[in-house]
Amino acid sequence: MGNSFGKLYTVTGFGESHSPAVGAVIDGCPAGIPLSELDIQPQLTRRRPGQNKYTTPRNEADAVRILSGIDRGVTLGTPICLIVENTNQKPGDYAEMVPAPRPSHADFTYKEKFGVAASSGGGRASAREAIARVCGGALAEKVLGSWFGMEIVAWVSSVGTIDAPAVDMNTISRETIDESMIRCPHQKTSEAMLELINNTRKSADSIGGRITCVIRHVPVGLGQPVFEKLEAVLAQAMLSLPAVKGFEFGSGFEGSRMTGSTHNDLFVKKDDTLGTKTNRSGGIQGGISNGENIYFTVAFKPTATIGTAQMTADYEGNEVELIGKGRHDPCVVGRAVPMVESMAAMVMMDMALRQRAVNPASLTYKA
Amino acid sequence: MGNSFGKLYTVTGFGESHSPAVGAVIDGCPAGIPLSELDIQPQLTRRRPGQNKYTTPRNEADAVRILSGIDRGVTLGTPICLIVENTNQKPGDYAEMVPAPRPSHADFTYKEKFGVAASSGGGRASAREAIARVCGGALAEKVLGSWFGMEIVAWVSSVGTIDAPAVDMNTISRETIDESMIRCPHQKTSEAMLELINNTRKSADSIGGRITCVIRHVPVGLGQPVFEKLEAVLAQAMLSLPAVKGFEFGSGFEGSRMTGSTHNDLFVKKDDTLGTKTNRSGGIQGGISNGENIYFTVAFKPTATIGTAQMTADYEGNEVELIGKGRHDPCVVGRAVPMVESMAAMVMMDMALRQRAVNPASLTYKA
Amino acid sequence: MGNSFGKLYTVTGFGESHSPAVGAVIDGCPAGIPLSELDIQPQLTRRRPGQNKYTTPRNEADAVRILSGIDRGVTLGTPICLIVENTNQKPGDYAEMVPAPRPSHADFTYKEKFGVAASSGGGRASAREAIARVCGGALAEKVLGSWFGMEIVAWVSSVGTIDAPAVDMNTISRETIDESMIRCPHQKTSEAMLELINNTRKSADSIGGRITCVIRHVPVGLGQPVFEKLEAVLAQAMLSLPAVKGFEFGSGFEGSRMTGSTHNDLFVKKDDTLGTKTNRSGGIQGGISNGENIYFTVAFKPTATIGTAQMTADYEGNEVELIGKGRHDPCVVGRAVPMVESMAAMVMMDMALRQRAVNPASLTYKA
Amino acid sequence: MGNSFGKLYTVTGFGESHSPAVGAVIDGCPAGIPLSELDIQPQLTRRRPGQNKYTTPRNEADAVRILSGIDRGVTLGTPICLIVENTNQKPGDYAEMVPAPRPSHADFTYKEKFGVAASSGGGRASAREAIARVCGGALAEKVLGSWFGMEIVAWVSSVGTIDAPAVDMNTISRETIDESMIRCPHQKTSEAMLELINNTRKSADSIGGRITCVIRHVPVGLGQPVFEKLEAVLAQAMLSLPAVKGFEFGSGFEGSRMTGSTHNDLFVKKDDTLGTKTNRSGGIQGGISNGENIYFTVAFKPTATIGTAQMTADYEGNEVELIGKGRHDPCVVGRAVPMVESMAAMVMMDMALRQRAVNPASLTYKA
Repeated sequence: MGNSFGKLYTVTGFGESHSPAVGAVIDGCPAGIPLSELDIQPQLTRRRPGQNKYTTPRNEADAVRILSGIDRGVTLGTPICLIVENTNQKPGDYAEMVPAPRPSHADFTYKEKFGVAASSGGGRASAREAIARVCGGALAEKVLGSWFGMEIVAWVSSVGTIDAPAVDMNTISRETIDESMIRCPHQKTSEAMLELINNTRKSADSIGGRITCVIRHVPVGLGQPVFEKLEAVLAQAMLSLPAVKGFEFGSGFEGSRMTGSTHNDLFVKKDDTLGTKTNRSGGIQGGISNGENIYFTVAFKPTATIGTAQMTADYEGNEVELIGKGRHDPCVVGRAVPMVESMAAMVMMDMALRQRAVNPASLTYKA
Repeated sequence: MGNSFGKLYTVTGFGESHSPAVGAVIDGCPAGIPLSELDIQPQLTRRRPGQNKYTTPRNEADAVRILSGIDRGVTLGTPICLIVENTNQKPGDYAEMVPAPRPSHADFTYKEKFGVAASSGGGRASAREAIARVCGGALAEKVLGSWFGMEIVAWVSSVGTIDAPAVDMNTISRETIDESMIRCPHQKTSEAMLELINNTRKSADSIGGRITCVIRHVPVGLGQPVFEKLEAVLAQAMLSLPAVKGFEFGSGFEGSRMTGSTHNDLFVKKDDTLGTKTNRSGGIQGGISNGENIYFTVAFKPTATIGTAQMTADYEGNEVELIGKGRHDPCVVGRAVPMVESMAAMVMMDMALRQRAVNPASLTYKA
Repeated sequence: MGNSFGKLYTVTGFGESHSPAVGAVIDGCPAGIPLSELDIQPQLTRRRPGQNKYTTPRNEADAVRILSGIDRGVTLGTPICLIVENTNQKPGDYAEMVPAPRPSHADFTYKEKFGVAASSGGGRASAREAIARVCGGALAEKVLGSWFGMEIVAWVSSVGTIDAPAVDMNTISRETIDESMIRCPHQKTSEAMLELINNTRKSADSIGGRITCVIRHVPVGLGQPVFEKLEAVLAQAMLSLPAVKGFEFGSGFEGSRMTGSTHNDLFVKKDDTLGTKTNRSGGIQGGISNGENIYFTVAFKPTATIGTAQMTADYEGNEVELIGKGRHDPCVVGRAVPMVESMAAMVMMDMALRQRAVNPASLTYKA
Repeated sequence: MGNSFGKLYTVTGFGESHSPAVGAVIDGCPAGIPLSELDIQPQLTRRRPGQNKYTTPRNEADAVRILSGIDRGVTLGTPICLIVENTNQKPGDYAEMVPAPRPSHADFTYKEKFGVAASSGGGRASAREAIARVCGGALAEKVLGSWFGMEIVAWVSSVGTIDAPAVDMNTISRETIDESMIRCPHQKTSEAMLELINNTRKSADSIGGRITCVIRHVPVGLGQPVFEKLEAVLAQAMLSLPAVKGFEFGSGFEGSRMTGSTHNDLFVKKDDTLGTKTNRSGGIQGGISNGENIYFTVAFKPTATIGTAQMTADYEGNEVELIGKGRHDPCVVGRAVPMVESMAAMVMMDMALRQRAVNPASLTYKA
């Protein structure tokens, strides 16, 4: 349970970090969309470990293979299964950890919940489950781009206590962001972040950070009233990512400090519809997109597995010293950028299909 | 679409602020639970407007009536329909607003999404839809209390820029909280908040705030890996509430500033299982409850409808001046406290049923 | 659980025969559909007991009341709650049955499943739950009629061993059918059926029967591959009706006797698309509508509650004599006609919305 | 859409007959179940083509590979992905058919629904999608067997107009059934059936048939009221199988001919609970299992693709002669036996988990 996301565009993930493969089945993608592995691979590669010294040295190729749902280069409207083989399994890395649950990791809760423990400790609580998300998101992005020109761009807005200055959300691009090793588009901040991460690595520690994401060219009308408001499903999507501790959109937590007269987004004529002068609503009003940029920030805790000794307890409650030995990032946010984009794309795709079902005339497609 | 919440304990809400009634159908409640209107009414009354000068003067009785699913005082295991009649409908209050969409409200997006507009503007985007949530939550709380002794307590932790000091999450109770008009358990802060709200009302403005919630006596093992992590579904639940801009649990956004060696919760023996020395995980690790207190904070924006004139645009794009005339709270957080508790209860109930399905032996019931 | 039907057009039923009300919440109906109680009442009245001497003498008005989801005469796109009060509750009628589970009724299984028993015995296993179906179906029919000109007509094709001759499925209408007290459009057969039912009633017994249903003007492309084939969801819908023992569509069980060369429906040009010369496929190929008439037959067992003494066992296993005293039809098929139509309409509506979501261009709307 | 089955035990199928692989993801299987490919392979092999001269000569090994969800020989409680490579792809077999839609096949409806056509014609409408069903069913059977001792056995009860006599449902076993090439347990009937099939093959034709299935050792209380009655979900499951035209359980269509006094199943004391003297209810009353054997019959039409010339129309409506050339069974029922068993197992497993969620005490496990 809990391994599927989306009501009409449904992505079901599978795979543990040390099972033969990880992957996803995507059901609900419309037919006739040109698709090959080349559409998926770039985002997979962006989230892949071992890209540089700031990320874990696991060097999987993460080459995706499409097993079903396409024919002669286009989607058939049937389920698309994508897999990535786990070619670099080293269960030994984890073996040493088995005697005690790793602090702030999923070992203890998985064991209690399921009554069995995976060799790798946390079962599905592995960074590799992200592959399913990226597969689901990359395809969604492609469809949303072709239909609406929708663009989804995320970047690292803080690492530890280092915050990047605000960016121009209308122009920020993945190309710009990827010029930074840590995916922070502000060069000086990026350098400071990388130095902090490097120092953190040297002290065998880890550090948290934040990612901000903007969604541009969103049609008005996406999102469902009450329990499936657009922001609610985005929040679920983001909090489903490993290590996430918080989500805010538009004015966010700071919005709770403000008065209505300051906070309200006044309407103005924009082309042949209405827009808003400001965008504290973050592009969503009453749970439904209003056509302005959607933007939100996601907070990630520091990686739980660290190379520093920790005094903790084993499963029997005896005090033990634990030192993490696995291959782990000192800071996950750089690699998490495509995961945030992917989850956002899956949400938007599902909502677009649902709006088509009840009011297709409300959606304008790209010429 | 979007009006149901929960997979096994499913609450479906219905009703607009000016339709004959609002209510909920709860499907999935186990049979044999003693239930009457008296179990639901207290939380409904807590969220009811018109309780004091700090809330809107609409004086509905909000008396709930159970239409189905119980017999001789116990639940039958069949759907429970609960309704509250809208006895105090005054569509005239809203009529003046029709010519222009209210800023930062749902009027514009609802009209664009659905192609029609409700008399009251935002259709389901009405504070009265909360009644369904409270019905669903009150019943869930009752079951969770009897099974596990679970307790859910929320309070106002900030209004505008006024923050309450930390509370003892192990002992804080609804009784203590309700001693404050604004439901802030720290007396001096409560007074300052009330003064701020009063001043805000006088200036025909509104103000945001935050609610913190703790869930105690949570069995280990609730929550589903990957897309339905406990924190993810809680986030969806909270962001589905009107006016919510952000959600964080455990160390939250501040956790993203920290290092792993500082942030990690080390295990210690507690009774015949493990607990953690600290609780920055907020009671959830890997998406699954670990038995510690679950706690989280929800940010609410200032009420969108204010009595101050705003220069905005009508549906045709012409600039117009708009002054809100409806009956609206200057600050919603006090009344939102039972809504936060209710949504939390619905999430926990659904997760408890799901865990029973796959591993009933993992759950220990109260003696 | 199990009280909702449909993925996008979702009907949630509630109510026991002796609770204050029965009803339904319909979520997913598009906005802007003209709707009032008058659209629902006719089908409700058709299924109402007490219409003539062949049906149970319970004389409820079954007047439906819409509690939400409409405004100024049109749907808002929000959940529509409809209720019918149970004005004629006579729990005493059932009281005598409590000591022993009625044979072939739901008393025993409900008690074992839920651990409690409703006063009326079978809880939701009451003919009155059909009201939810009729509400959901009447609205669906209205939408399908306006979009596609779709027509759904069911009739009694057999009572006991009396079979009606084949009818012209292209022209048969509800008006014709309702000219018969038992809703069999062939007059002589109708008379024989009524005589059989009358004799059955006199001998304090009951009798089974069959209903055939045709759906006309169906757009090509409705139904989902594999698990949600159109016939599969129709089968679920029909078998969900009380007392149903079987379902067949197109050539049905007889089709299993045939050879491929005889059974296959050859394609021919029809207007600007393809049709089939014969229609043993019953309008569905590969789980998807092909534009021909959809037709199917549903078998109903004889009413379980009869006025004749039966030697059975009480809950403790002691042999007891049981004589049914409640108000029950000797033959349910006449009243079940609108229920079959309603379930069919709900299925078609859900499938139409789903097809719009993925390929709106495939559907042609009525000029 | 439509490629997942089950609410808690969810099987998602994927794969076309000529894509690289077909398979399934099973989410919701409890943890700790011993599982290897050897548990799945036998049923896969039973449904495999090329087993004898009565089935299609495609000689795939159909060797299943588990990609995820198990570790050290037991399930982890996480999604189990199983795939079977399509090693024997011969698209050329199908190429000749492309110009015209095969009569009574899915080519036309798939093309109209999706707007694209798979090389193999009907996309997911391929016998190979059954592999997902068999994977899902084999695992479910294993769990149900270990929990309740549940047994599911299906057999061919008719081919064309040849009907097998009734069997003893309490003792019939897969071993007995597999002694017959056509899986009919009555030897003389089996021989007649095989002769009929052989003659049908010689005349380049096909023939329909029926499968009957019994489920033994069913706990009382499985099935959900109203829309998800046990028989309703079984009906959906069976009608989702390719070529199925009808479903009946218990007394079935013949039950509609009977009177209540003859049809009713009277209760008698059985061990420490109640059973019924007769079993016209087919083990289900009010949609819920009553502990007696569940049995039902499924009707299959003759295979649509035949080697005899048929005058039909191409996509433009021109009359063309079509002769099927692919590899197809003249009669599918023998191979469909494990598919019926598998779908039944998936239904029972899902219902067992759901009952555990709401009333675990109602289920008695095998000592």
